[in-house]
Amino acid sequence: MLEQLKIDVCEANKMLPEYGLVTLTWGNVSGFDKESGCFVIKPSGVTYDALTPQMMVVVDLQGRQVEGSLRPSSDTPTHLELYKAFPELGGIVHTHSAWATSWAQAGRDIPCYGTTHADYMYGDIPCLRGLTAEEIQNDYEKNTGLLITDYFKTKDYKAMPAVLCKNHGVFTWGNSPKEAVQYAVVLEEVAKMAARTEKINPNAKRAPQPLMDKHYFRKHGANAYYGQKNR
Amino acid sequence: MLEQLKIDVCEANKMLPEYGLVTLTWGNVSGFDKESGCFVIKPSGVTYDALTPQMMVVVDLQGRQVEGSLRPSSDTPTHLELYKAFPELGGIVHTHSAWATSWAQAGRDIPCYGTTHADYMYGDIPCLRGLTAEEIQNDYEKNTGLLITDYFKTKDYKAMPAVLCKNHGVFTWGNSPKEAVQYAVVLEEVAKMAARTEKINPNAKRAPQPLMDKHYFRKHGANAYYGQKNR
Amino acid sequence: MLEQLKIDVCEANKMLPEYGLVTLTWGNVSGFDKESGCFVIKPSGVTYDALTPQMMVVVDLQGRQVEGSLRPSSDTPTHLELYKAFPELGGIVHTHSAWATSWAQAGRDIPCYGTTHADYMYGDIPCLRGLTAEEIQNDYEKNTGLLITDYFKTKDYKAMPAVLCKNHGVFTWGNSPKEAVQYAVVLEEVAKMAARTEKINPNAKRAPQPLMDKHYFRKHGANAYYGQKNR
Amino acid sequence: MLEQLKIDVCEANKMLPEYGLVTLTWGNVSGFDKESGCFVIKPSGVTYDALTPQMMVVVDLQGRQVEGSLRPSSDTPTHLELYKAFPELGGIVHTHSAWATSWAQAGRDIPCYGTTHADYMYGDIPCLRGLTAEEIQNDYEKNTGLLITDYFKTKDYKAMPAVLCKNHGVFTWGNSPKEAVQYAVVLEEVAKMAARTEKINPNAKRAPQPLMDKHYFRKHGANAYYGQKNR
Repeated sequence: MLEQLKIDVCEANKMLPEYGLVTLTWGNVSGFDKESGCFVIKPSGVTYDALTPQMMVVVDLQGRQVEGSLRPSSDTPTHLELYKAFPELGGIVHTHSAWATSWAQAGRDIPCYGTTHADYMYGDIPCLRGLTAEEIQNDYEKNTGLLITDYFKTKDYKAMPAVLCKNHGVFTWGNSPKEAVQYAVVLEEVAKMAARTEKINPNAKRAPQPLMDKHYFRKHGANAYYGQKNR
Repeated sequence: MLEQLKIDVCEANKMLPEYGLVTLTWGNVSGFDKESGCFVIKPSGVTYDALTPQMMVVVDLQGRQVEGSLRPSSDTPTHLELYKAFPELGGIVHTHSAWATSWAQAGRDIPCYGTTHADYMYGDIPCLRGLTAEEIQNDYEKNTGLLITDYFKTKDYKAMPAVLCKNHGVFTWGNSPKEAVQYAVVLEEVAKMAARTEKINPNAKRAPQPLMDKHYFRKHGANAYYGQKNR
Repeated sequence: MLEQLKIDVCEANKMLPEYGLVTLTWGNVSGFDKESGCFVIKPSGVTYDALTPQMMVVVDLQGRQVEGSLRPSSDTPTHLELYKAFPELGGIVHTHSAWATSWAQAGRDIPCYGTTHADYMYGDIPCLRGLTAEEIQNDYEKNTGLLITDYFKTKDYKAMPAVLCKNHGVFTWGNSPKEAVQYAVVLEEVAKMAARTEKINPNAKRAPQPLMDKHYFRKHGANAYYGQKNR
Repeated sequence: MLEQLKIDVCEANKMLPEYGLVTLTWGNVSGFDKESGCFVIKPSGVTYDALTPQMMVVVDLQGRQVEGSLRPSSDTPTHLELYKAFPELGGIVHTHSAWATSWAQAGRDIPCYGTTHADYMYGDIPCLRGLTAEEIQNDYEKNTGLLITDYFKTKDYKAMPAVLCKNHGVFTWGNSPKEAVQYAVVLEEVAKMAARTEKINPNAKRAPQPLMDKHYFRKHGANAYYGQKNR
């Protein structure tokens, strides 16, 4: 089942090392199929160059392994909570990409310092609170997902497709596995430039609101005019 | 029309990822043909590896799309203003290259700390003021161009072929699309070294004026003696 | 003798430049054979691309060169002390990888700021004291080994498979040459992110203990659930 | 004439981009032939991938172009002064490699923080004073050479085969063009680690003298024991 999605998810996982987002096996991509209500995810601990579509694991929204002989990523319960709460998602990425994870370890939101950021994400990229000891000791990965979905109960998860998990790493999402990887690429680049911006000018200010609006809506919504119409 | 220029502009666009100046589709190159008064520019949102000369878009100095079925870069109105104001330009580059954009986000000019910088650019590389809300909301890309050309009304755009746009990215230009890319390469390298220079010595001083003069005029003007005569 | 181990050690040495851990010939890998009580190590000063399994040198636990016509790595007496003190080791790596060595030159332990670190190493990565003038002038490499093994007399060398040698470089170890290289990769990445974390937030705090425990024991010990069972 | 040396110098020039030491054409290598008293040097402004041994330029110790149809590097008068003053040199390298040049722009000597540095260079790597306006305006490249050779009148140029030229770039030298490139590689790596060391610990101390002695003399002089005897 879901043969095309397995191919897409496999390819999206292989994009992680190509874009320099992962070391060893530190990241995973999943993709969601709305019709069957199942998602396809990377098997745990397998290197990217060894991945084949047949190795992908299929999981349903009750968290049951529907297909695949390998164990799914240990982060599967986090992906599960996101797909349950954000029904329009088509793909999720988790990485420990070095610049974004440094912000997560620093426990800081990434300020929106420029249009590179504003072109893709509306506002500062949030670093969520750390989990409590209880949340860590029982159902850690599920609680990571709940922390993310709780945060977005009052916010638009489409306008901010990325989040930092304190002392841990990052999650991004999108309409497809490939789009979620694209946001992971943007996040890493934006995290790098924000750190350097503060080094060059410790008193740097956020981009002004009109500039952020202009760039975000140049690419998103009814009045977007970036790119080609039928792409 | 302009078949050779389309090839040159296509190749110059592909140089952007080769030199590490762009992520995803964050940059574009154009080239100007003095005879026809038209310029050739990258189509919007197309990845560099997919570009062919046939996909390039031709635009005249009234901003009309003369040839090409794809939408031109969303930054086309900025290129247009520069070609109108700087009649001897042969090529323009826009990127969000990481080090130079970090200076733009920091809102600082790049001081001339050494001969690498002075070999190509005469003086500090300016970071222009941010646009006003009105300038952003109406004709944003055109106003970006006007801000640049206004700045150079009293300055020599050939002696400073690069500018930082605050909270945004960079523009560079030259006698040809390829030369404009070369200045984008220089800008990124100089931006990197200037940031590191200040980290190593927060009290670092600019290169002395005689050294800047020596290096700039070693490569430019009637008494230049760098390189080969017929190259 | 030890033909398979020579192949493994040769391959593990070639992994050092592939992972960006060495410049010129600044690193070496050895592997231990419990049955014979001998270890196989890189010859001194030979470039990685020129290495063949036949060039590997075999040394016994008395430090005698048992096989091989080339001189073993000048760090051989350090490897020897580690194999003598840590009988379950299968491989040792020494590098001057740039980020980890910068911590060693700074004379600081690497704080555990996140789960990337906690997944592999339990607690801060120690930077050992510098050797005394006497320890340096006589049996320098042996004394480097003794300093490391002394430090671990009261600690678990399996839970902390990495150490920084002040003003010098790093050693890592594992069940096999390849696993020791993997820890060298982790060490370099963790060193990089820790330095950036402190730059982004000079008051960054270590990851909380429950999070460190969760991640370490997710991958190690009886209750580990990361990866595949038979891998 | 000097066909083998032309091949060696050409290859050594091509090593500069391979080791990431140059951008565009920002560096050159020369090699000296003691018998003829001539040196072979890169032509000015030619890209490294286009270089062939036949393009190399031969210059004698009076500074006369003995062979070659292209202009020699604009830095030729600097190389000339070094060969005249340091008769045992076999090769010289000039680059603007990014980390070392950042120290030159910062106007600081590179402190010897560890054994990576001490293995190749004895003591801090000096940043020379800037040239005066007069020295810059007349015979700039020659005066750059004289500044270097003056500095070493009371010092051992073999124990410190590298120097930073303030607000400019670096020169390194060795027994052969290839060895000079090797020192340029070491210099860049050491410059990078020293900058990071100070970031990680602003109060970092130099490596102690016994450690510097141990490492330097492990590789140099009568009692060296690093590497293979006949290599």
